[in-house]
Amino acid sequence: MPTFALGPNQYGKAETRIVRVTRGPGGDELTDLNVSVSLRGDLAASHLTGDNAAVLPTDTQKNTVYAFAREHGIDGIEEFATRLARHFVESQPGIHGARVIVEQHPWQPVDGRHTFRRDGGEIRTATVHHDDVGTQVVSGVRDLVLLKTTDSEFHGFVQDRYTTLPETRDRILATSVNATWRHAGPAGDAYGTARAALIEAFADTHSLALQQTLYAMGERVLAACPGVVEVRLSLPNRHHFLVDLAPFGLDNPNEVYYAADRPYGLIEGSVRRDDDVAEEVAWSF
Amino acid sequence: MPTFALGPNQYGKAETRIVRVTRGPGGDELTDLNVSVSLRGDLAASHLTGDNAAVLPTDTQKNTVYAFAREHGIDGIEEFATRLARHFVESQPGIHGARVIVEQHPWQPVDGRHTFRRDGGEIRTATVHHDDVGTQVVSGVRDLVLLKTTDSEFHGFVQDRYTTLPETRDRILATSVNATWRHAGPAGDAYGTARAALIEAFADTHSLALQQTLYAMGERVLAACPGVVEVRLSLPNRHHFLVDLAPFGLDNPNEVYYAADRPYGLIEGSVRRDDDVAEEVAWSF
Amino acid sequence: MPTFALGPNQYGKAETRIVRVTRGPGGDELTDLNVSVSLRGDLAASHLTGDNAAVLPTDTQKNTVYAFAREHGIDGIEEFATRLARHFVESQPGIHGARVIVEQHPWQPVDGRHTFRRDGGEIRTATVHHDDVGTQVVSGVRDLVLLKTTDSEFHGFVQDRYTTLPETRDRILATSVNATWRHAGPAGDAYGTARAALIEAFADTHSLALQQTLYAMGERVLAACPGVVEVRLSLPNRHHFLVDLAPFGLDNPNEVYYAADRPYGLIEGSVRRDDDVAEEVAWSF
Amino acid sequence: MPTFALGPNQYGKAETRIVRVTRGPGGDELTDLNVSVSLRGDLAASHLTGDNAAVLPTDTQKNTVYAFAREHGIDGIEEFATRLARHFVESQPGIHGARVIVEQHPWQPVDGRHTFRRDGGEIRTATVHHDDVGTQVVSGVRDLVLLKTTDSEFHGFVQDRYTTLPETRDRILATSVNATWRHAGPAGDAYGTARAALIEAFADTHSLALQQTLYAMGERVLAACPGVVEVRLSLPNRHHFLVDLAPFGLDNPNEVYYAADRPYGLIEGSVRRDDDVAEEVAWSF
Repeated sequence: MPTFALGPNQYGKAETRIVRVTRGPGGDELTDLNVSVSLRGDLAASHLTGDNAAVLPTDTQKNTVYAFAREHGIDGIEEFATRLARHFVESQPGIHGARVIVEQHPWQPVDGRHTFRRDGGEIRTATVHHDDVGTQVVSGVRDLVLLKTTDSEFHGFVQDRYTTLPETRDRILATSVNATWRHAGPAGDAYGTARAALIEAFADTHSLALQQTLYAMGERVLAACPGVVEVRLSLPNRHHFLVDLAPFGLDNPNEVYYAADRPYGLIEGSVRRDDDVAEEVAWSF
Repeated sequence: MPTFALGPNQYGKAETRIVRVTRGPGGDELTDLNVSVSLRGDLAASHLTGDNAAVLPTDTQKNTVYAFAREHGIDGIEEFATRLARHFVESQPGIHGARVIVEQHPWQPVDGRHTFRRDGGEIRTATVHHDDVGTQVVSGVRDLVLLKTTDSEFHGFVQDRYTTLPETRDRILATSVNATWRHAGPAGDAYGTARAALIEAFADTHSLALQQTLYAMGERVLAACPGVVEVRLSLPNRHHFLVDLAPFGLDNPNEVYYAADRPYGLIEGSVRRDDDVAEEVAWSF
Repeated sequence: MPTFALGPNQYGKAETRIVRVTRGPGGDELTDLNVSVSLRGDLAASHLTGDNAAVLPTDTQKNTVYAFAREHGIDGIEEFATRLARHFVESQPGIHGARVIVEQHPWQPVDGRHTFRRDGGEIRTATVHHDDVGTQVVSGVRDLVLLKTTDSEFHGFVQDRYTTLPETRDRILATSVNATWRHAGPAGDAYGTARAALIEAFADTHSLALQQTLYAMGERVLAACPGVVEVRLSLPNRHHFLVDLAPFGLDNPNEVYYAADRPYGLIEGSVRRDDDVAEEVAWSF
Repeated sequence: MPTFALGPNQYGKAETRIVRVTRGPGGDELTDLNVSVSLRGDLAASHLTGDNAAVLPTDTQKNTVYAFAREHGIDGIEEFATRLARHFVESQPGIHGARVIVEQHPWQPVDGRHTFRRDGGEIRTATVHHDDVGTQVVSGVRDLVLLKTTDSEFHGFVQDRYTTLPETRDRILATSVNATWRHAGPAGDAYGTARAALIEAFADTHSLALQQTLYAMGERVLAACPGVVEVRLSLPNRHHFLVDLAPFGLDNPNEVYYAADRPYGLIEGSVRRDDDVAEEVAWSF
């Protein structure tokens, strides 16, 4: 008779939406977060018999997020995630590991007082893993959409029976940056530096392949942020195809493009310090 | 035996995605549009018998969008939409009316040369109706998300058997502005003024109801833009509820909020110049 | 000095998500709805001065939806919407008109007892307008995706300078049906008949244009449902393009297609009984 | 001076949308797929210098998907993914590993001839990894939404300072099943059996925790499918909260519920045969 076993598992409350206002004479501050908690530990009984003696309810995790925002404030999303992750592991005998993901929606002050405007689609992220081995902090940004109108080529690639793509010496290059970077220790205030490095490397790299741009972006973050040991990037190639206007008696000197939805290229990779020992537990693609 | 008749109808190509690059020594310009065309006219035969003699294919409409971007450039989205709408009506004997909707995705220059960053979720819109009566131009913005941390009250409302909402003298007010404004003539360069008026009125109106804020926003646009004759607003009330932290022994002095998804209030209304004769053909909610 | 005036306006609670379970010895029944209420009336004071004396809070509207589901049950979505719309107008002196939209998510019983499986993307809808003129009931379906692999042609269309589309005698025709139909009186139990008529007409109409299929679908509903006086359809043309496999030395006898996202054709139209007097207040595209 | 290194990387064409029609005298068959390819190999030069000599363009990968659908047909999505994965690795000296993900949208025949109706939101999936170690085949389903109206309890959980959730002996349990199962060899025709096992276990397990239901679902698939060695499940807990109708003088005997969007519980876990050696390369959560 076959027997089965419980494999890796985790559980938690996902997407707790919290907005915190810090009121002050010089104008308010607004922190707008989406917090997802996952816990690991002595959860076999819950799976096998429905005995929940080690299960901290996901509803309680949600409550903890709200209470911590009041008790401890939110200095930064990495710190907030770290505090939560440690709390769950340290306060619960049956919980041995926690992963806390925080997404931050940016807002721009409008009047320096009480009013704010949501600043678009770009999301700042933090992912913290904590267990008895230690704490790992990963920062990131996603939905950062960049485009360059030139300085991008693609040629010299493999030609096989199914290849019809012409080589190009000048194309639009566009992507929606999804980047994460792992810190050797706490995150500190590296976010702005890392984000700027990503954008600058995209802008000033003359690109022969999106892979080359990806590597340059990762390398730039490592060079600019001494505390960062690895950068992971997932870059969709948002194709912009030059429209053939010849049937209408018109030329098209790299001026009018069709922005395609699907399919799209997807380039994924990581760049590391040479002396980095990969800690795969901390994240995955 | 019952007989049936064809009622109002229209057809066209929706969501043609076009990106136009204007290259110049002082840096490139980027125009990123989503264009939807709808045509009306002698289309009964196509519906009743499949005789397409009056049907300009939607594929041709798409081609026209691309070709016009090259032939005429894109000075502004209202002008581009107007040129397209007039073209279809004037060049096609069987087409008597056209509506062209253009959505513009904003981009920010990164380096003043070739690189751009997509500027979030806010979308600028233009809707142009053209037929033998004339041309009507409506401009707009959507997904402009605003929040104020105070200066919002809600009380004095009807209490019936099903009312449990407590009155409040201080709440967060947040919305995603979906606004359109109709011009007496061409749009000119009113967009920036209108958008700023919306934001400023939201910010400096001490709000006793989202309805009051809506009216103030519409009024402000009319006051700032002499050529605008009507403003329509659709404002979802993005509720932010103060979290009850008392069970955890904590107070919550308007600091920690839960941002709800659904349900939400939805406030819709228009503000007009007193002398405006409504031209309902031009748009609908 | 210019003066301004409040134009048409409405407000209400949108997207109240309610699930009702009817428990019985022969197995449970599940009703899964999304309810949106909009009210019109003496709302000028709320807009102009923030005086909410005529405003029934949207929170109360939400409560009413839940309470009515318990007090009166949900016999059908048209009846539920009608009951709600009448209640708001009849119980509130300051409210003179109500529109209630109900979306129903279908579920399939799994075991005839307690378990259900969500039945995909198709949504049933009801829209009820009620004011002192009367009550109008509109039923509908959306996201009903249909495809036929043949029996669709498109030719004989206008050719202008921008036309490159070749004529075709055999293509895939696919759409996501968004249909609404207006009843002379209450909806009764016409839904299943109307939905079947839409699908059957799509299937057995040899199509020379999506317009022709649209008309046939509307006509079929009118023929099958004596109480229906008008049908409105919005049919995106979900293009499936035959892939050119010749570069790979392969033919493609109408076998392998690329399913495109954007742009897409959008065909919209209505079919009416000859004796129907349009009641435009009841709905709009 | 710090030096950096390229870490794990992959690239490919994502979301190639292909529809294949098999025409026959007894009615057509429709296969509607979304195919994503990722390749690994000698890609350092492309990242470091933009030398693309080992890069098979993602455009070529797209072409290959279409051509293979014509040359070899699509017997099943696991077989199609396997054929593609092996082709890329075996035909390209610089490519050493491939992952191919295929999503299948189900359609129902309408008339037994040419017309089909899209069968909702549920998606069938296959993920195949191929490299010189071998071929691993993972099947799955996602967006399979299940609900049971009773037979679900949750109590006996940890109570800490932040716990306010009351225990319950009767609640609605609902989830959107996201399941994958790894085969020892090829997938064969296990899909229907595995899918039915998931649904049946959800239906007939009296649940004391969603974790318990998860384990039962995984165990049932293993018991029903001898060739499956591991099942992974990601189950969001789609909360349905009983509405408090007491303020309106009404009871609520488990009848009227509010369906919440966010936050939600998220329960993830795997169930394995005891003798299974985990092959982590094949998939990740």
